[in-house]
Amino acid sequence: MSLSAAELAGVRALTFDVFGTVVDWRSSVIREGQALGAARGLNVDWPAFADAWRGGYAPAMNRVRHGELPWTRLDELHRMTLDRLLDEFSIHSLSEADKQHLNCVWHRLTPWDDSVEGLHRLRQGFVLATLSNGNVSLLVNMAKHAGLPWDCILSAELAGHYKRDPEVYQMAARLLDLRPEQIMLVAAHQDDLQAAHHEGYRTAFVMRPLEHGPDAEPDLSIDPVFDYVAHDFHDLADQLMRV
Amino acid sequence: MSLSAAELAGVRALTFDVFGTVVDWRSSVIREGQALGAARGLNVDWPAFADAWRGGYAPAMNRVRHGELPWTRLDELHRMTLDRLLDEFSIHSLSEADKQHLNCVWHRLTPWDDSVEGLHRLRQGFVLATLSNGNVSLLVNMAKHAGLPWDCILSAELAGHYKRDPEVYQMAARLLDLRPEQIMLVAAHQDDLQAAHHEGYRTAFVMRPLEHGPDAEPDLSIDPVFDYVAHDFHDLADQLMRV
Repeated sequence: MSLSAAELAGVRALTFDVFGTVVDWRSSVIREGQALGAARGLNVDWPAFADAWRGGYAPAMNRVRHGELPWTRLDELHRMTLDRLLDEFSIHSLSEADKQHLNCVWHRLTPWDDSVEGLHRLRQGFVLATLSNGNVSLLVNMAKHAGLPWDCILSAELAGHYKRDPEVYQMAARLLDLRPEQIMLVAAHQDDLQAAHHEGYRTAFVMRPLEHGPDAEPDLSIDPVFDYVAHDFHDLADQLMRV
Repeated sequence: MSLSAAELAGVRALTFDVFGTVVDWRSSVIREGQALGAARGLNVDWPAFADAWRGGYAPAMNRVRHGELPWTRLDELHRMTLDRLLDEFSIHSLSEADKQHLNCVWHRLTPWDDSVEGLHRLRQGFVLATLSNGNVSLLVNMAKHAGLPWDCILSAELAGHYKRDPEVYQMAARLLDLRPEQIMLVAAHQDDLQAAHHEGYRTAFVMRPLEHGPDAEPDLSIDPVFDYVAHDFHDLADQLMRV
């Protein structure tokens, strides 16, 4: 599974899935929802709201992927889902400013405990780039808010395609001016890694068993094509860094 | 000239021209050329070589701008000029690996003395992004090499147009999801600032009298449309930062 020393030495850049892999979207959305609910006197099941919001993510992207919508950045897809959910959860009292602020919760997600320190370690040996479906401004704001030390913000927005479309992985290789085997995707999601592997990337699966909350039963199955499997970014740094 | 407190408070991102504004391309190219010349026994006027290489920059970009060449990233334009100059300067003994390494000197340019510390100060108050004709990989490698603390790498490559085409400034506003007046261009070159101003950007002229060497007479004229004029990045931080 893991690469030979020569193969690993050829890896120049680590690209990262962000939602779920680097940041804990669920706890962040719940926490901000609860604070907003308390301030506005709302009675909402925020864990269910967070799950439903995230649940709208893949279908919304698929509408872009299948040509039902023109290219639409993730902020706007999030807002379309938010507007639907506010109705479904009978939340009718939020101002437009409240809605805009809530929609930008995805710019303010909290990293997993190991993320920032792990990225600082990994940055000593590799170019670190996002490779996320989040739009560029979302990723820039998140990095600023959370202290994520990226060398480069790469986004599906730059390809005009959402992962797992191959164009996203090809865009990153082109912009980093690297061959696919010089790039590793780090992600908590099997299908993202499989799509990257298909484009010739190296792959590291980082398990995030709490992504969907303490009661979920996440898929932690390991595809033999994965080059590395790690419990967190410290573990990944231990495996990838020779110092 | 300088903005009102309310106008300045609206500025969210500082975008930077890089070659000449952040890094001292001329000294860097001369120094690496001299080292290569000593190692390979070449007798070359490296200051003249550096000036000729940089002199090929605008004409090469204009070939792209006028449709004579398809979109071509700056690394490749630099290489086309380099191959011509090696001939003109009668340098015939370099290996292909030497040429590739020399061409990447533009990835290893040294910042002006104030750049890194000034950027760290400015980063406390603003999103900092490159807005350069250098390709993405060049800018990523340069930042890594020189310790430039960018929040985001933006490049002409992402627009498929070179500055001063308006598409470059428009691309940055779109990707940062900001209105033009929320963005300031920081540059040492009047025409770059004038083009940004035309697109609605705020502007800061940073004087770099040594860009073209100690014997050049640089154009340091101040267009009244510039919002700020600064001697270096410390001076700019003094003017822009309230803390």
